[in-house]
Amino acid sequence: MTGTAVREAIEVKKAGGALPDELVAAVVAGYTAGAVPHEQMAALLMAVLLRGMDDGETLALARAMADSGPRYAFADCADKHSTGGVGDKVTLAALPIVAACGVPVAKLAGRGLGVTGGTIDKLEAIPGLSVALDGARMRRQVDAVGLVIAEAGDLAPADKAIYALRDATGTVDSLPLIAGSVLAKKAATGAGTVLYDVKAGKGALTTGVDGARELSALLLRLSAAMGIRAAALVTGMDAPLGRAVGNALEVRESVAYLRGEPADPELDEVVRAVGVAVLELTGVDEPEKAFERALASGAAHGRLAAMVRSQGGDEAALDDLAVAAHAGDVAAPRDGWVARLDARAIGHAAIALGAGREHRGDAVDPGAGIELLARVGDEVAAGTPVARLFGIRGAERAAVLVAGALALSGEPVARPARILERPAPAPARP
Amino acid sequence: MTGTAVREAIEVKKAGGALPDELVAAVVAGYTAGAVPHEQMAALLMAVLLRGMDDGETLALARAMADSGPRYAFADCADKHSTGGVGDKVTLAALPIVAACGVPVAKLAGRGLGVTGGTIDKLEAIPGLSVALDGARMRRQVDAVGLVIAEAGDLAPADKAIYALRDATGTVDSLPLIAGSVLAKKAATGAGTVLYDVKAGKGALTTGVDGARELSALLLRLSAAMGIRAAALVTGMDAPLGRAVGNALEVRESVAYLRGEPADPELDEVVRAVGVAVLELTGVDEPEKAFERALASGAAHGRLAAMVRSQGGDEAALDDLAVAAHAGDVAAPRDGWVARLDARAIGHAAIALGAGREHRGDAVDPGAGIELLARVGDEVAAGTPVARLFGIRGAERAAVLVAGALALSGEPVARPARILERPAPAPARP
Repeated sequence: MTGTAVREAIEVKKAGGALPDELVAAVVAGYTAGAVPHEQMAALLMAVLLRGMDDGETLALARAMADSGPRYAFADCADKHSTGGVGDKVTLAALPIVAACGVPVAKLAGRGLGVTGGTIDKLEAIPGLSVALDGARMRRQVDAVGLVIAEAGDLAPADKAIYALRDATGTVDSLPLIAGSVLAKKAATGAGTVLYDVKAGKGALTTGVDGARELSALLLRLSAAMGIRAAALVTGMDAPLGRAVGNALEVRESVAYLRGEPADPELDEVVRAVGVAVLELTGVDEPEKAFERALASGAAHGRLAAMVRSQGGDEAALDDLAVAAHAGDVAAPRDGWVARLDARAIGHAAIALGAGREHRGDAVDPGAGIELLARVGDEVAAGTPVARLFGIRGAERAAVLVAGALALSGEPVARPARILERPAPAPARP
Repeated sequence: MTGTAVREAIEVKKAGGALPDELVAAVVAGYTAGAVPHEQMAALLMAVLLRGMDDGETLALARAMADSGPRYAFADCADKHSTGGVGDKVTLAALPIVAACGVPVAKLAGRGLGVTGGTIDKLEAIPGLSVALDGARMRRQVDAVGLVIAEAGDLAPADKAIYALRDATGTVDSLPLIAGSVLAKKAATGAGTVLYDVKAGKGALTTGVDGARELSALLLRLSAAMGIRAAALVTGMDAPLGRAVGNALEVRESVAYLRGEPADPELDEVVRAVGVAVLELTGVDEPEKAFERALASGAAHGRLAAMVRSQGGDEAALDDLAVAAHAGDVAAPRDGWVARLDARAIGHAAIALGAGREHRGDAVDPGAGIELLARVGDEVAAGTPVARLFGIRGAERAAVLVAGALALSGEPVARPARILERPAPAPARP
């Protein structure tokens, strides 16, 4: 029966037709149950990548994948989703601010894979903190603290299985498959409000702004169809965001941000845009002022500390998190202006140091990573360090990668804008 | 390395590029060796189906698949290849005539799958006959008898593996993949001269004449590039060819043809066209006359008998081959003219009786099958039998399928032409 379903689906897509909802559901259920072999699913995914899917098919895919695991109910809560990047600690910096403004936040997050970091890996750099919370436990914490971030362990297992197959078969770069995967997780979370931070650039899934704009519009249409209040930002990911790349290093940078210490201006730009957009979506009055108050008063930092405490983490360690041994610096080879800091290459350097994983299941060193001492647009002198490496292994390879990621110009270089577009919201469904 | 090759090939085809020869070779070798997983190969095959392949890529595929097994050398011999159909016994009827005209014939043939019969299954209906001959044994028989047909057992194993995967993943109906598969077998055979009988119609791989014409042209271009002398015919396969469908039944019809008994006119039309085309290709003078002489003199029948004897078959049984028990007839439901005898439905009816296999490895009953007592264009009276069923099982289901395959018209129906096109030969390569 499922063997028939996937064969039928393959023929529909080959002919350029649209998959009926029940067929999508039968294929996803069959694949999750092991009744549809990998090779048939791979052929279907390639046909989908090359023929495309309309919004109805993509919604059916998202719903079928959401239905493959537990469904949560956080309709009263806000969430944000980043399509992934290097040094992206916006969740840790922005969501405590949102929570401090009185908007409850519940987020199911994932681990990093490849150059893309994951919020769960970052949180696990905090000693004692548990990310394995069930729905009831999450709900209690939202009600008590207003902020919870847990691991999306068993959320949408079909999405996890299909993503692994896409990764192996060259079928990752399909907008409907990307959007279906995101929406499956949001549907399973039962999210009421979502801000999508869609990255564009060398360190992102979608390298061009056009693709990111298209993905944003698709995410907004699908969210509207699912009854999720949503907005989107297209933000740049040519270079890492902020100064820290690596789990403990990124938590440190986020905590310093919440303490009001002088922040990287690009990180500040994105955290502010994301935070304010969530507050706007949830109807908070004067969102910029609310954001500022929550930050300046220390309320946001207090909200993060409360979350850490509630999840069993060492609140005292939060303000001076341990990092790995200093493993050397990378210096500017000559005088000039930083023209490029390739996010993908720096992501690979961080992986070499142990901060990330090439393959699902690899171990991660929470203290490993890279601190960038210069950013695009900065003037540097020959021999001054531009990056500091932390880790107990891989420093040599990481240094080569960081040196390769760096390009200097003889002319001044303008700091690139991080907020590239603010896509219009999808029209409400009739 | 091969994992890299297939991933690279997938990206090339996704982007609409052409695969370099070495990449094709690496992927085929990797898949044959088990180093490329089925799901990656399936994704590549779907990308090839939807993006196409040019002649260079298709040649590289054919050569790589030919190189996966033994290579034979029959450059002095003629061969014919049918793209498959129901009741297609042209090999058995035409090749003895060609051999009797002094043209050596060496053919490596296959078994049937689905509604398409296979010459090897048909030959095995002859008691004692062996189709498992090695290259040296085939060569001796060509030199002694002028005619050999053996099983293509270990020929192009990569083609066999890829075909099975295509069958499972909806990637059969790609002209470059079909042509690559055919040419791989011809290259491995080392064939010097090949006549392609490309079927068009409901019982064929390519249902439309346009597709069959395109496939013919492709086969001729690839053959020219490989130094194979080739011609093609596009012949109809809406209805079964001739009166017999089933292994022993088809051998009986072929032997009767070679004995000069009154033949089905459509079968005669195709056998004559194929035989004469091979004789023309190989430079036989006055090919129509030579064909006629070989048939009328009994030389062709003698040549088949000599082949059967040489391969250990019971020559005496040949002229009255046993068939399975008569299992009933299907009668015309009303008066009229036969407007349709759906080849695919009749093929499935023959399978139900045990004459064919749905899945590779299924057992076949050599005596099972169907004798058609009427053909398209014939006038029939209500209650007269139009088909006779032979077999020890499946008669009920077969009768339903044959009844469904039959359509009657209240108006006279013209007998359809079987020879639909005679594609122009490919220009010789510079």
